[in-house]
Amino acid sequence: MFQSFDVTARPEQGPPRLATLRLELEKQGLDGFLVPRADAHQGEYVAARDERLSWLTGFTGSAGFCAVLKEQAGVFIDGRYRTQVKRQVAEVFTPVPWPEVQLGGWLKEKLPKGGKVGFDPWPHATAQIATMTKELADTGIELVQCDNLVDRIWQDQPAPPLQPVLPHALEYAGETAVDKCSRLAQELSAAGQTAALITLPDSIMWLLNIRGADIPRNPVAHGFAILHADARVDLFMAPEKLGQLGDHLPETVRHHASEDFLQAVAALNGAVAVDRASLPQIVADALGERMVSTGDPCALPKARKNTAEIAGSAAAHLRDGSAVVELLSWLDAQPAGSVTEIEVAKRLEDLRRRDPVLRDISFETISGTGENGAVMHYRVTEESNSTLEDGHLLVLDSGGQYQDGTTDITRTIAIGTPGSEECAAFTRVLQGMIAMSRLRWPKGLAGRDIEAIGRMPLWLAGQDFNHGLGHGVGAYLSVHEGPQRLSRVSTVPLEVGMILSNEPGYYREGAFGIRIENLLVVQRAPKLSSSDPEREMLCWRGLTYAPIDRRLILTEMLSQAERDWINAYHAETLAKLRPHVSKNAQAWLDDVTRAI
Amino acid sequence: MFQSFDVTARPEQGPPRLATLRLELEKQGLDGFLVPRADAHQGEYVAARDERLSWLTGFTGSAGFCAVLKEQAGVFIDGRYRTQVKRQVAEVFTPVPWPEVQLGGWLKEKLPKGGKVGFDPWPHATAQIATMTKELADTGIELVQCDNLVDRIWQDQPAPPLQPVLPHALEYAGETAVDKCSRLAQELSAAGQTAALITLPDSIMWLLNIRGADIPRNPVAHGFAILHADARVDLFMAPEKLGQLGDHLPETVRHHASEDFLQAVAALNGAVAVDRASLPQIVADALGERMVSTGDPCALPKARKNTAEIAGSAAAHLRDGSAVVELLSWLDAQPAGSVTEIEVAKRLEDLRRRDPVLRDISFETISGTGENGAVMHYRVTEESNSTLEDGHLLVLDSGGQYQDGTTDITRTIAIGTPGSEECAAFTRVLQGMIAMSRLRWPKGLAGRDIEAIGRMPLWLAGQDFNHGLGHGVGAYLSVHEGPQRLSRVSTVPLEVGMILSNEPGYYREGAFGIRIENLLVVQRAPKLSSSDPEREMLCWRGLTYAPIDRRLILTEMLSQAERDWINAYHAETLAKLRPHVSKNAQAWLDDVTRAI
Repeated sequence: MFQSFDVTARPEQGPPRLATLRLELEKQGLDGFLVPRADAHQGEYVAARDERLSWLTGFTGSAGFCAVLKEQAGVFIDGRYRTQVKRQVAEVFTPVPWPEVQLGGWLKEKLPKGGKVGFDPWPHATAQIATMTKELADTGIELVQCDNLVDRIWQDQPAPPLQPVLPHALEYAGETAVDKCSRLAQELSAAGQTAALITLPDSIMWLLNIRGADIPRNPVAHGFAILHADARVDLFMAPEKLGQLGDHLPETVRHHASEDFLQAVAALNGAVAVDRASLPQIVADALGERMVSTGDPCALPKARKNTAEIAGSAAAHLRDGSAVVELLSWLDAQPAGSVTEIEVAKRLEDLRRRDPVLRDISFETISGTGENGAVMHYRVTEESNSTLEDGHLLVLDSGGQYQDGTTDITRTIAIGTPGSEECAAFTRVLQGMIAMSRLRWPKGLAGRDIEAIGRMPLWLAGQDFNHGLGHGVGAYLSVHEGPQRLSRVSTVPLEVGMILSNEPGYYREGAFGIRIENLLVVQRAPKLSSSDPEREMLCWRGLTYAPIDRRLILTEMLSQAERDWINAYHAETLAKLRPHVSKNAQAWLDDVTRAI
Repeated sequence: MFQSFDVTARPEQGPPRLATLRLELEKQGLDGFLVPRADAHQGEYVAARDERLSWLTGFTGSAGFCAVLKEQAGVFIDGRYRTQVKRQVAEVFTPVPWPEVQLGGWLKEKLPKGGKVGFDPWPHATAQIATMTKELADTGIELVQCDNLVDRIWQDQPAPPLQPVLPHALEYAGETAVDKCSRLAQELSAAGQTAALITLPDSIMWLLNIRGADIPRNPVAHGFAILHADARVDLFMAPEKLGQLGDHLPETVRHHASEDFLQAVAALNGAVAVDRASLPQIVADALGERMVSTGDPCALPKARKNTAEIAGSAAAHLRDGSAVVELLSWLDAQPAGSVTEIEVAKRLEDLRRRDPVLRDISFETISGTGENGAVMHYRVTEESNSTLEDGHLLVLDSGGQYQDGTTDITRTIAIGTPGSEECAAFTRVLQGMIAMSRLRWPKGLAGRDIEAIGRMPLWLAGQDFNHGLGHGVGAYLSVHEGPQRLSRVSTVPLEVGMILSNEPGYYREGAFGIRIENLLVVQRAPKLSSSDPEREMLCWRGLTYAPIDRRLILTEMLSQAERDWINAYHAETLAKLRPHVSKNAQAWLDDVTRAI
């Protein structure tokens, strides 16, 4: 079992840990200390050793930080976690709505002139430190680099992960590491830069066609890399992890111990490209004025999936869809009131694990029934575990990390007889999901320019949801991958090969939740007879296949085009998955994919 | 007649004028000179005296500039004018696609190191000069302030306009000038600024509840103003213009001669708020380091129309709609091949002029039939004037400046029997227009976030149009008013009271054009039974009423909701306009507003 349903942090553990940390503040002569969720690689998931925020506060969300002061401890969390944080932290912690309230402004209010706030320069990106320093410019409050105070007081802190790194076959990668390094190095040369620092693990994995297992759910290994303008690479990684690679790495890659990274950075000459949004402050300090802010040079090439990556992802999605179909067909045979959220998550993971190339699940399965479905990033635990009751909607958001691709799918399932409000909202969410799936748009637009299309049906009913419409997804890499997003804040143009999720939802706190999610890949739109001759347009190719619960669709709300879409989607789902599922699931699939 | 159909500029006049200007370049020891379309007030329209760009080049569009060098003369024009510029300028001028090609980059290519390009510091905004200076930083090419060389060679250049300024009654303005000045002054005080410079004529008109007639189509007078933090105003304007104001201006407004403006600016103390995008470079120089870039303080208050302004605009729209109905009903009675574009424009203006409070048309009527309809900003002249033939679409885009409001309406009319491609494209444009009209959206979104809604039906057919979906409109002020826009580049949140156009279109060069335009005002969306309780949403209230040509609608392409919208719109149009139009027009209106 990849997923655990243990209660990983308990509110009551927070106060004594906080008290110990405050003693440490005293010793260091500090007025505060910052405890970010992030590690030195700024990924969404962190190793057990780096779970400092949840260890201290109990909050287990994937983003946020705690500002510990002598009298107060603010837990800064974004819109996704407003409900969750209330359940997870003790009263000694104050949830702070972020980014509405910025750390700088908050510190200004709480601290006197001359206050000193400590931070570990590894898990803080230099852009973040620069912003905070600017916010605090006129206040006399100072940010001070120091050791990680949580590490000092965390007695049984786990060791750094040392999982083996494995080759990522050319069959799935579609381009050799040498070719990737060469074309990126050419860009460095052209821009007059001597090297680029790569500190995001998924960028290193992509560049060198390797995969790791240092952190849960993401097939990445911790490490750092320097890509030189002559296409050589210095890789800084614990040697214990590289034993299974054989001669997979090209000769242009030299291996070094992790500890040598800062020294190697200090020795670089000329202009060095960095991503200020993820570069640790301590590395920025080592680089000083040679730093050129370009963003991660791997980010866009990695986001534009090639033919092999798309083929791999499509294949992984079909096998993943078969597992989902087995789960859904089984679930439909169970009477309301007889199954729990955890049973659903366990059975789904078991079904996925039948595939020998499943390496992990791609995130903790969200299995939330009834009011738990309204918690957008609900993680079911033994404590919260609820039974699927008649009239509930079950939100089931899950995915797998397969050797050939990463999946992420959400289905909302009616348990027993659904209510009419639930069906109306579900139909609107579906209409938004269909509208985005059917869209064509002129080349050059970003997620921000088209996101409204997926929300409009809800808007017309006075409804909306408080998360983005979709996120980028990796090719057997992070399930949340930048820079592309279907979000109001994303100005990165969508390009051919980018994989994104399309996942509108609707949430009524204390009542029910709805989300429908398919992954899509950007492709050139085929010409139509009506097409403007010179206009380049893009459209989606679908990756995800699994039935959408017809019992929740109010057919009379749909246009003919919407009905046609759902019927075609179900017909394709049947054709693609039927040969690969059990007899029981085949019969179920025949039934639930009938035309509406 | 407000509109003239004269050919105002002829390509053959360009070359000798360009030759004369180049002699002037020699005399001044310059390698180039910039001739912008703009005047010192950066408005869309300029006085006859300031029509330097069209005098020199023949190009009459409302934006662009010419960079005159010894060997080349680039006419920089945006996407709207690509077709038009080819018709209007002689071969000695090179059209340059702008903003794709920036002036700085273009000059770099054409001029040697050490090249000197002259500019008049009045009609160039300081932000623009700063950008160009930055672009030229490493080139050794220098921008040099000088006299306006066009003025030196333009023998019969008209004198500056001196039209009388009139009061704008409180009944229409809805707020006294004193109150406006007070609330803006309070914001200046709160921000620690001693004054704000107001150089945009429509801002001055709005602030002081006056209207002028210095430039065609816009009821504004040229002038400058300084708003002090104690709510006093210094107004710089030719005294000849103020004779009809009586005691309309409050005592807090002191009048000065225009020539004293720079000296008064130089004498200001403390931080002074300016709009760098419109502040003349020469004024920025006078202000130096006291300049604080805040944007025009009148811009947003002016954009958020109050109840009186909205009521005035709605009333003006009904009278304007009646004139349009008289025109359309007359036109429908004329056989194909019997009417010209100019006859349509003239008759429409005559119909509008029957209203005693019409002060001007709000822009040159665009009356384009057949392939002329594909020229987005077509201005019909005696030379281009075409006959409305069977199978043509006529694009008729026009508006009035009434004492109580500004209108802007486009209708596309079938002449004889329309083609099927035309009807399909028209129906898609209509679907986009309806989708935007019906929209509700969460408070806080900008034009950019919702513009796609009005394009989607075209996108799905592989089509699009190369202009924004809509622009802000003033309350008896500029028909193109910022900062709100329905455009991919507009990040200004839409607020209650803002008036915008909703005008999707479709253009096939050399064949036909389509545009449908109504004005809309942002309002709070009434709650629905399905509404999220805490979510604030906005929607539109329609201002424009006039029939949409049912002969061009392919009914089978519409959803029921779209049919319901068009039927309801036509029923409202009938109810609102029927009592105010002639018997003939009533019969016509009864017919063309029947349900589909």
